[in-house]
Amino acid sequence: MQFLQFLNLNKQFLSSLIPKTPKQELFEVQEQEKMEKGSKRWGFRANEDPNSASGLSIRGVLYSLMQNIDAGDERPTIPLGHGDPSAFPCFRTSLSAEDAIVDALRSADFNSYSPTTAGISPARRAIAEYLSRDLSYKLSPDDVYVTAGCVQAIEVALNVLARPGANILLPRPGFPIYEARADFCNLEVRHFDLLPEQGWEVDLDAVEALADENTVAMVIINPGNPCGSVFSYRHLKKVAETAKKLGILVIADEVYGHLTFGSNPFVPMGEFGSIVPVLTLGSISKRWIVPGWRLGWLVTTDPSGILRKTKIVEGIKGYCNISTEPTTFIQGAISHILEQTKEDFFVKIINILRQASDICYARIKEIPCITCPHKPDGSMFLMAKLDLLQLEDINDDMDFCFKLAQEESVIILPGEK
Amino acid sequence: MQFLQFLNLNKQFLSSLIPKTPKQELFEVQEQEKMEKGSKRWGFRANEDPNSASGLSIRGVLYSLMQNIDAGDERPTIPLGHGDPSAFPCFRTSLSAEDAIVDALRSADFNSYSPTTAGISPARRAIAEYLSRDLSYKLSPDDVYVTAGCVQAIEVALNVLARPGANILLPRPGFPIYEARADFCNLEVRHFDLLPEQGWEVDLDAVEALADENTVAMVIINPGNPCGSVFSYRHLKKVAETAKKLGILVIADEVYGHLTFGSNPFVPMGEFGSIVPVLTLGSISKRWIVPGWRLGWLVTTDPSGILRKTKIVEGIKGYCNISTEPTTFIQGAISHILEQTKEDFFVKIINILRQASDICYARIKEIPCITCPHKPDGSMFLMAKLDLLQLEDINDDMDFCFKLAQEESVIILPGEK
Repeated sequence: MQFLQFLNLNKQFLSSLIPKTPKQELFEVQEQEKMEKGSKRWGFRANEDPNSASGLSIRGVLYSLMQNIDAGDERPTIPLGHGDPSAFPCFRTSLSAEDAIVDALRSADFNSYSPTTAGISPARRAIAEYLSRDLSYKLSPDDVYVTAGCVQAIEVALNVLARPGANILLPRPGFPIYEARADFCNLEVRHFDLLPEQGWEVDLDAVEALADENTVAMVIINPGNPCGSVFSYRHLKKVAETAKKLGILVIADEVYGHLTFGSNPFVPMGEFGSIVPVLTLGSISKRWIVPGWRLGWLVTTDPSGILRKTKIVEGIKGYCNISTEPTTFIQGAISHILEQTKEDFFVKIINILRQASDICYARIKEIPCITCPHKPDGSMFLMAKLDLLQLEDINDDMDFCFKLAQEESVIILPGEK
Repeated sequence: MQFLQFLNLNKQFLSSLIPKTPKQELFEVQEQEKMEKGSKRWGFRANEDPNSASGLSIRGVLYSLMQNIDAGDERPTIPLGHGDPSAFPCFRTSLSAEDAIVDALRSADFNSYSPTTAGISPARRAIAEYLSRDLSYKLSPDDVYVTAGCVQAIEVALNVLARPGANILLPRPGFPIYEARADFCNLEVRHFDLLPEQGWEVDLDAVEALADENTVAMVIINPGNPCGSVFSYRHLKKVAETAKKLGILVIADEVYGHLTFGSNPFVPMGEFGSIVPVLTLGSISKRWIVPGWRLGWLVTTDPSGILRKTKIVEGIKGYCNISTEPTTFIQGAISHILEQTKEDFFVKIINILRQASDICYARIKEIPCITCPHKPDGSMFLMAKLDLLQLEDINDDMDFCFKLAQEESVIILPGEK
């Protein structure tokens, strides 16, 4: 099945679009410098793993698409394939969030490293309180690890789980930094499908079929990247029950939390934390439209304390201890940002996202070869099917995207293959 | 030989003080939750590697020392073992640096992710120009990778070099995040000594004896952490020639660059980049007293282009692509910070560091059982020898530190064992 992606407001998402390249073979240094006498040849060469892992990310594809645009075409390029909303003036973050950063900086109280690599206490407390608003139990500041964006939260989660032989279940379509990071820490990846005809819900039968005694976790991204789906309470509960049955934990990527405009409200996976232990990942990047601020979190939403008993918590602390930390003065501002941002800011952002999604969905309906199996309910993406039978001279989704860039100066991205 | 450390203004440095713990054995989950019927036992457990690696860092030791202080002692605690200078009002960063951050934030031009994970172009250009001031050749912006502090630069450098079977030469005493990160990426560590009687210069004979065909790099930290040394031009050149002879690259940690107050001026290792390829690591954390801002760099100071030919550059890009990035608006401020900070700010900071070092050195001279083999020339530390023969009932450096905390409410840190 061929898919196309539209409405991609976030460049990191680009990486979701290329299939995993085969692991690069260990390369030999071919053109080593001739050394003068007295020195031998250079003995170092690069570890091939980072490149192999980063081959899963695809800024390169976007650049190729952009280069495919006909420079002679006088029409402006329509970039539906990249960028993040913060580039557009209508998506400017709230002034009170900016004020909070300035106040924290000017106080000079937050120029040091944070006393613990888990983050400064007021930030951990504020994030615990913010997330507890949507839960039927109360998180403790000790449940919270402040991270340099959600990307670092993903890195921590996967590294902590990557014991030898372990495997992890990832959604397809998904967000490929998971594949890249799993690859880099030798965590075997197994993919379960999201079902387009069922609102991109998780194929739970596939999850059960894929899991074995070495499966450590399954990942859900809700609201969905890149499908724009929002899971119902009922579906999330089934996810929890399936994970419990399999004895695996759930990594819930909620970086798009609260960015919903369909019939399903946002329900945090942590609400089912008493059924199954959940690692909740999030950040202020999307809801406040500030991905460049690099402030996220990894939270153990696990009222039964299973993550502590299984030493996952210890592993998280250990990994944080050897990693970089989020900027301290941004941590210093986070309580103000989470507590004081006015509702009208959120409403405005949701309304723009809904309008953009509606327009995109309506226009796609007018195009015969493209159909959208599920109108987006949240996040910033729309995933559509491409019907190759209605097209001539198009090999696949990638080919379609290249020719669309070349002939129409419109940038969209290939879906999964 | 027993060592003690004083004048530690930087908490990260604390981690330099404990010997490497043996790799923790793979632990078994002992107290697994009794699961209700229909679910099997939880199948995940933590990867032991992060904890093993972070066991090399030692915030814990400091906490233990602090807890050893006699609460009944009315004298104020003298903390010579931790903290970073940004905690003290006299070390406040320059107002123009703060202004630059505020301007970048308020512009709303830097709320996005950076277009490449290597950093935004103006930041890369500014860092290239800043470092080129001290070099006899000119760096290109393409040589620069902006990182989330020097800790992330270390992480990138070691991961890129960690091909299977490789080993790396690290200084002893040193900065233990290197040991922790090398351990975590399975890069074998071999230690060469710094020579206290020769101004803590590198024991180059030891370097030659340790290296073999699997050695990829040696690390120098100059100005020195934790010995307060500043290497001469002549010694750095010898380091370069030795590395060239061995066919290994040099990782030059210059996070304390320019913080010198002795007879040797700061000479960047990159000045010898035409002899041996150098990865230069640095940040604004120390010179601008803002470790919490998390803005550093990894730079290929390698005019012969060997790091490109050996694909190290490709590995760096690949690793950056799957990693978190420094805050964009801080990157947006960096050119102003590097170019516009007034000389009197630097002079003031250097003067305070010199005075603190002089006082510490003079007072230590009055203590019979402690001698300082080399008066500090730079950075923020002083390393002293402890003569156990002059003491009763003291087992080693750690024991001394614990008893000093308990009896005198003075916190200093044990050196290497």
